[in-house]
Amino acid sequence: MAERVPIIQKILSANDQIAAENRARLDSRGIVAINLMSSPGAGKTELLLATIKAMHDRCPIGVIEGDVASRVDADKIAAAGVPVVQINTGGGCHLDAAMVRQALEALPLEEIDLIFIENVGNLICPVEFDLGQHYNVGLLSVPEGHDKPYKYPALFHSADAIIASKLDLLPYLDFDLDAFQELIRGLNPQAPILPLSAHTGAGLEAWLQWLEEKWMRERHATSR
Amino acid sequence: MAERVPIIQKILSANDQIAAENRARLDSRGIVAINLMSSPGAGKTELLLATIKAMHDRCPIGVIEGDVASRVDADKIAAAGVPVVQINTGGGCHLDAAMVRQALEALPLEEIDLIFIENVGNLICPVEFDLGQHYNVGLLSVPEGHDKPYKYPALFHSADAIIASKLDLLPYLDFDLDAFQELIRGLNPQAPILPLSAHTGAGLEAWLQWLEEKWMRERHATSR
Repeated sequence: MAERVPIIQKILSANDQIAAENRARLDSRGIVAINLMSSPGAGKTELLLATIKAMHDRCPIGVIEGDVASRVDADKIAAAGVPVVQINTGGGCHLDAAMVRQALEALPLEEIDLIFIENVGNLICPVEFDLGQHYNVGLLSVPEGHDKPYKYPALFHSADAIIASKLDLLPYLDFDLDAFQELIRGLNPQAPILPLSAHTGAGLEAWLQWLEEKWMRERHATSR
Repeated sequence: MAERVPIIQKILSANDQIAAENRARLDSRGIVAINLMSSPGAGKTELLLATIKAMHDRCPIGVIEGDVASRVDADKIAAAGVPVVQINTGGGCHLDAAMVRQALEALPLEEIDLIFIENVGNLICPVEFDLGQHYNVGLLSVPEGHDKPYKYPALFHSADAIIASKLDLLPYLDFDLDAFQELIRGLNPQAPILPLSAHTGAGLEAWLQWLEEKWMRERHATSR
């Protein structure tokens, strides 16, 4: 059997170059791209559905769905009337820039202002691969426990905003929101912490405001 | 900068060989080893604490804790009076057999009948690396959603038992236990499905029986 001899350094450089090309392509069209990262089942797709419902009429959205297998998330997004591309990594634990480049080819970019890239559910691998996004958003669902930033520091350190999701379950858990916020402040003093429930809508307004601010900044920066 | 040139095929073979050595070492002492795999925050440590409380007096337990960073889980296990070793992978998304070999060196094997290896919280990477365990147990917490086996089939396919954890949260979720069981049956017809709550103790008895059966089988097989 032939041996595979990947050269890690070069793979990363190639990824960064494609990511830069993706970002330039999005910039030239004034599109803002957001890379959503979390554990499996932390509520990324539910948050996207609530965001689409609240914003899509004034800020056209497109979605890139990353999963090891299946198209269940893409089907949910498509049902909400938004252009979506599903990437299946076939075992890979993260998206990379080349996958996103392919997905951008398939999206109607001329109709889109805001692209969400829903990364593979994983708190470890996705953070190392630039995709060409403008912002990283890290999501932790409260059933996962407030100690998770101790155990997965890189993702929370690199995020531009941090969401504590499934807030409606808080009364049934011993999740300590103050301890979580303190832990995040130690790892990442800049990022806003946004506790919310996509299910009840609680806290959603602050998230939408954060998005709107990023989107308006891009509209001012580009002459469309 | 020197380029790293790992040769994937050889790394895997070396891992398998060390895993076989770990297993032989455990077998020679009649110790059963169980590899616990799940998403971050699915309740592996809580389940171990409940299992220790129920079984440790008649079946001495040891624990190997795998995490990217921190020793919070090992501290909880040590407080329960059980020998424990913490492995920090420093960014790696799974344990490997060499890490477990090192941990076995540090555990008082002569005092242990049952070893739990709590793998890094990740539904993708751990499944590809044999550690020398006798059984794989896959855990899905009900807040993650019943569709997860669609998206992460390999872990559920490879498990010898599948736990649906945090069952006490079921009334507050739209988790469909029947749909989950049907999905698992399609992927893995043999593995028992064990819904339980380590918090309330509901369903714990079936899990303890499953463990007891594996432990008794090993005691009959070896002359200690």
